Amino acid sequence: MINDIEVIKTKSSKINEVDFDNLKFGSVFSDHMLVCDYKNGKWQAPKVMPYQGITLDPSAKIFHYGQSVFEGMKAYKDAEDNVWLFRPLDNCKRLNISSKRLAIPELPEDYFMEGLKALLEVDKDWIPKKDGSSLYIRPFVFASGEGFHASPADEYKFLICTAPSGSYFSGEVKVLIEEKYSRSANGGVGFAKAGGNYAGQFYPTQLAKEKGYQQVIWTDDNTHEYIEEAGAMNIFVRINDTLITGPTSDRILDGITRKSIIELAKAEGINVDVRKLRVDEVVEAAKNGSLKEMFGAGTAAVISPIAGFGYKGEDYDLPKMDDTYANFLKKRITDIQTNKAEDPFGWRYKL
Amino acid sequence: MINDIEVIKTKSSKINEVDFDNLKFGSVFSDHMLVCDYKNGKWQAPKVMPYQGITLDPSAKIFHYGQSVFEGMKAYKDAEDNVWLFRPLDNCKRLNISSKRLAIPELPEDYFMEGLKALLEVDKDWIPKKDGSSLYIRPFVFASGEGFHASPADEYKFLICTAPSGSYFSGEVKVLIEEKYSRSANGGVGFAKAGGNYAGQFYPTQLAKEKGYQQVIWTDDNTHEYIEEAGAMNIFVRINDTLITGPTSDRILDGITRKSIIELAKAEGINVDVRKLRVDEVVEAAKNGSLKEMFGAGTAAVISPIAGFGYKGEDYDLPKMDDTYANFLKKRITDIQTNKAEDPFGWRYKL
Repeated sequence: MINDIEVIKTKSSKINEVDFDNLKFGSVFSDHMLVCDYKNGKWQAPKVMPYQGITLDPSAKIFHYGQSVFEGMKAYKDAEDNVWLFRPLDNCKRLNISSKRLAIPELPEDYFMEGLKALLEVDKDWIPKKDGSSLYIRPFVFASGEGFHASPADEYKFLICTAPSGSYFSGEVKVLIEEKYSRSANGGVGFAKAGGNYAGQFYPTQLAKEKGYQQVIWTDDNTHEYIEEAGAMNIFVRINDTLITGPTSDRILDGITRKSIIELAKAEGINVDVRKLRVDEVVEAAKNGSLKEMFGAGTAAVISPIAGFGYKGEDYDLPKMDDTYANFLKKRITDIQTNKAEDPFGWRYKL
Repeated sequence: MINDIEVIKTKSSKINEVDFDNLKFGSVFSDHMLVCDYKNGKWQAPKVMPYQGITLDPSAKIFHYGQSVFEGMKAYKDAEDNVWLFRPLDNCKRLNISSKRLAIPELPEDYFMEGLKALLEVDKDWIPKKDGSSLYIRPFVFASGEGFHASPADEYKFLICTAPSGSYFSGEVKVLIEEKYSRSANGGVGFAKAGGNYAGQFYPTQLAKEKGYQQVIWTDDNTHEYIEEAGAMNIFVRINDTLITGPTSDRILDGITRKSIIELAKAEGINVDVRKLRVDEVVEAAKNGSLKEMFGAGTAAVISPIAGFGYKGEDYDLPKMDDTYANFLKKRITDIQTNKAEDPFGWRYKL
């Protein structure tokens, strides 16, 4: 059990340079960061220190073998300046699930939780209050150990950095259902928040953008007949009044927003069906008018409604509706996150 | 076209600290490195500078999204102190093929080739002469651009570092044919030398090691019925007197050693069959005695003979033979690489 976390405060805060009314996503960083080193076979004591550059040997394995995992979380400030997190222990547990698959040593949970609390305590003035804004939190682990040998590193760094942020996406999202490229393999690392999963998406997403889409809907790599994820988010499809999302697997991320939406929707009396979803079925539903909504779900955007999709050269528009599950569930979930509503699920975590 | 490459020499060489008679693989680094930055939409002039740490912002995308690619090459010194490379332009071209798939800007070929030559000129005393030793060369590119947004970086670093090295593998290698985990997806990045491909292999390889194997033989992620790669190498299987290797695809790396072996074996009158290879077929051949050899092929080890394999709980030993294709081809290829034999293929490249 970790007791006191050493805190080295910055001598010159940058907070007055930041325009909190016009924040982008994840591009301004708070004054401090948490750093914890793994060496000599164990995680050393985490430390809060001024946000600063990291110096690594050119042979550090992160540069060569992609041995890294990360998490995404948010902190919110309510009207009384209380600070709230959302299911933070789930992020900690998932970080370790990801780490295990990437052969990275798992981190003691209290290093994560106590380190996070100490960091947010120091940088609490960086948590924005404006509606829709939050402090985006990025815990990550990477291989700092050295050598040009394709094997797990003997040293790692765990960091938590934070960035006061506005909304992730803006505007209507048109997506392309992918027929060629894939995000993950059976028996691969798709379920982990591994760095390499994201880099592999960039090029197919660029190609989709050139065709006028903002994101790719990933399908299974073998047949491309099943819907798996939406960009870097989980995906939900509403056919008639049923909300459908694929089951988690070794290919699909066990999203915290995803599982919260499933639980919340069920509690609200919405019919939720967790099952494999064929592309054909979605196309057919679009044609016969039973396809009401599609949306991505993830920490950064919470819920990102999809306005239409392309598949095999055809474009399909989704209906414009006033009362969507997406809007309803996004408001419910953000109200819980920001302490504007009761939290019957015990998800909210007071700092 | 790049003309003069700026060279900043180290003030204190470490070369006298190195025991060139007892080199491990890729763990001692030469005095200098080549560095080339991508910013403002273009690759800047490459520079040779003292080998030194790299400082990055914690939000640099390499730490989060695995956007990196690399190459492996070797330089050899012959009896007259001439320095030789092996098909270096192929590495340069493959680096760009990998980069493209990872949404990394492609590098001008002359930056790679002229940069490499300038670096090796400065560090030519680091190239070992001892039989079996070489200067291992590691070109790599990674995302240095910043921000917690899962999108391609706007800045990158290309480096070449070198490490005087002994042999990569030693001893007999027992391998496990994988039935659960996978290396790559159809439509994924398996054909690229992307960092993330390697990190994903570490955990399954650890599990194989715990069972007494040194490496994993990767199979296709859908059926696990086809042999694909051997650890981080391509794989060759000899059944009777035919050498079989899988065709390249978007899942299998287009190995330079692999294609050199194919060409060389054919020129030597060996029957080479490039086709998909079923695990069943290899097991059956092991049982009926027609399986003569299996070996991995890659830059680091050149050829790494396999002594036996495990599959579905059974172990299969390969016959111990005196005149193997593996030994014959390894000697032929290293003789060409080190200027001990004629090079009818035009592979050798004099510095």
